[in-house]
Amino acid sequence: MKKIELDQTREFNPLGMKSIILHDSEHFKILNFNIMGGSIFPVHSHDLDGQVSILVIEGEGAFLADNEETMPAKVGDMLVCDIREPHGVRADTDMRIVVHIAPPI
Amino acid sequence: MKKIELDQTREFNPLGMKSIILHDSEHFKILNFNIMGGSIFPVHSHDLDGQVSILVIEGEGAFLADNEETMPAKVGDMLVCDIREPHGVRADTDMRIVVHIAPPI
Repeated sequence: MKKIELDQTREFNPLGMKSIILHDSEHFKILNFNIMGGSIFPVHSHDLDGQVSILVIEGEGAFLADNEETMPAKVGDMLVCDIREPHGVRADTDMRIVVHIAPPI
Repeated sequence: MKKIELDQTREFNPLGMKSIILHDSEHFKILNFNIMGGSIFPVHSHDLDGQVSILVIEGEGAFLADNEETMPAKVGDMLVCDIREPHGVRADTDMRIVVHIAPPI
């Protein structure tokens, strides 16, 4: 059992994206990505079974998908998709997301 | 791929706790619990493999564990534990949490 405080990992990287592993076990991996406003977490996918959730905890922008599809993303919005499905994030303001990956990759 | 908007599930139950399943797959289950201030999500556990994460997205209170252990819980705090470990939540104000369970139960 552990308690993680996300206000302790609020670090931004002027080069674009700061990635922090919060938890990694056989069951899931949990990460915090902090993305500078104006930056993009590029659309990507992995040829693996499993799913990912992306919850916005600060800022706003868009969830990105295949074929240049975009969905507005604000605090409290969550994208859930297969790891195989192309997904990404565009930060219009400084943006923080919490990502769960199960099973972990 | 689906987008979930947590501001659409901000419902409280005067009897204590409102539980909303946001996602359920073979990989993980994601729920939103909205707990009225003054209410408790009682300490519980299940004799199953797997882990759970509990992220506070609104309000404050405490994470609860075995032997009456408590840990302050505010927005951005996350508890990660085995499903077998006793865990619960005390809401001091109206409180919203997002729970991931992997594998799903």
